[in-house]
Amino acid sequence: MVSAPTNEHYFLGIDGGGSKCKASIADASGRVLGSALAGPANPLHGVEQTLQSIESAARRALSDAGLPTETLGRLVAGAGLAGVNLPSLYRVISDWPHPFAALHLTTDLRIALLGAHQQDEGAVIVTGTGSCGYVRAAGVDHLLGGHGFPYGDQGSGAWMGLEAIKAVLLASDDLGPETQLIESVAELLQARGLAIVERMSGKPSSDYARLAPLVFDAAEAGDPVALDILRSGARYISAMARKLLAYQPPRLSLIGGMAERLETWLDRDVAEQLSRPLGPPEAGALLFARQQSALANTA
Amino acid sequence: MVSAPTNEHYFLGIDGGGSKCKASIADASGRVLGSALAGPANPLHGVEQTLQSIESAARRALSDAGLPTETLGRLVAGAGLAGVNLPSLYRVISDWPHPFAALHLTTDLRIALLGAHQQDEGAVIVTGTGSCGYVRAAGVDHLLGGHGFPYGDQGSGAWMGLEAIKAVLLASDDLGPETQLIESVAELLQARGLAIVERMSGKPSSDYARLAPLVFDAAEAGDPVALDILRSGARYISAMARKLLAYQPPRLSLIGGMAERLETWLDRDVAEQLSRPLGPPEAGALLFARQQSALANTA
Repeated sequence: MVSAPTNEHYFLGIDGGGSKCKASIADASGRVLGSALAGPANPLHGVEQTLQSIESAARRALSDAGLPTETLGRLVAGAGLAGVNLPSLYRVISDWPHPFAALHLTTDLRIALLGAHQQDEGAVIVTGTGSCGYVRAAGVDHLLGGHGFPYGDQGSGAWMGLEAIKAVLLASDDLGPETQLIESVAELLQARGLAIVERMSGKPSSDYARLAPLVFDAAEAGDPVALDILRSGARYISAMARKLLAYQPPRLSLIGGMAERLETWLDRDVAEQLSRPLGPPEAGALLFARQQSALANTA
Repeated sequence: MVSAPTNEHYFLGIDGGGSKCKASIADASGRVLGSALAGPANPLHGVEQTLQSIESAARRALSDAGLPTETLGRLVAGAGLAGVNLPSLYRVISDWPHPFAALHLTTDLRIALLGAHQQDEGAVIVTGTGSCGYVRAAGVDHLLGGHGFPYGDQGSGAWMGLEAIKAVLLASDDLGPETQLIESVAELLQARGLAIVERMSGKPSSDYARLAPLVFDAAEAGDPVALDILRSGARYISAMARKLLAYQPPRLSLIGGMAERLETWLDRDVAEQLSRPLGPPEAGALLFARQQSALANTA
């Protein structure tokens, strides 16, 4: 059982992401009092911006909860952030002189899992801008994929966008098959051929992920190139799911921006074993803050 | 015939590249008087650095030729630079208040072609850090590939390195086949699994190209994953060569850092139609400067 901290404390759940940071505040009983959004909070894309977004989201959530700004110092925070599985990033963020009573740091995957299953064990595959898998079961704590753009994250939005750009550029040189992606990409980017290169050169993975819906659209219309991309991505996600299921987690959920459309492309045996997520990652971050606080109180 | 400018002028040939800038100085008769190297000069990676490198290489080449610094204002320069086929970059560099008597700007491919064939017509495939094809023949001026990292340039060093990293990361999750690249990449990068991600995240294409020799080594040792990568890259370069040959250029050369090792992997019909390059790109830049100067004098 989670032992409650003194009632002077509140819990703050932080779900950091590449495009925004979500914050939720709950009281000692777990009741959510307020929530808010702030800017990007992916430390892989910038630590300074991440810390600013976390503090900003926390202040806004306090305001949304009708609590005074001074309450900031009484928040027990749980934060799930991408990239903190990298030791160097974990250290940098742990060293932050944060304004909270406590800051418990974990990966975006851990809070996604806690949110989706409302318990410590289970497995999740996140397919949004990036993709990765995570399982905690019977003493196992295992991560799959999540290696990032442009060398990993098959089946993710950014990967689909990158494959779409590759196919369109090959076709524009008549060195690859025709595809309706040429027209849909041209419409979205307002660019063709070399102008696509000017438009995408040096751009972050989120810009590539914007093209993913075009791949789904084209595949659903029977475009062979888009079908190849989507089937290859789905094959990777299905293989990842089987690896995670081998650890016999109580539940497996597919979450993230691509999840809904991708689900129908997964192998049937995999799709049948998916469970709907019980809650969002920010709920998992709140649960993580409560758990860690209870551990600290009993220690 | 090229009409000679007044003998007060000298010619400067500039071959800009991602890792260094090569400069050669020749007199009105075409005799090379001196040459020098300076830092990176790829405008796609930084215009300011490129302009500095060009001026620095020119000053050093003057010194190497035993000519006084003031001669800078009497140099008729021809420069071949990557990326100036993009209108935005062409404009930025054309607007540079350069210190030369004249600056004639063209692509790295055009000077590679002029250098390799010592004439206006012909075709080249450059496979170094990136890859691209270029043909000028019978009124045709056509570019293939060269779209850049990470969405193009199949068969290039950076592409091979990227494919190697992808394969190693897949294998490290047991979601892809075993490959000896795991060990050779670990040795070169002093990193495995997630540490590879830390090592490569956000790195320029030249860092990926460093891994290309490992792909050749592994493929030559029969590693199936490396064989797949190399065969796929060679297939693309062979297809590109056939497209270029369709324009019936007088000669086709394969040049750049990957050329020698890649040649044996090309389809036989393509390999048999390759000609050795007659000169390097900086010789092509000098030739370009002379040609453009002659045009200006006759105009």
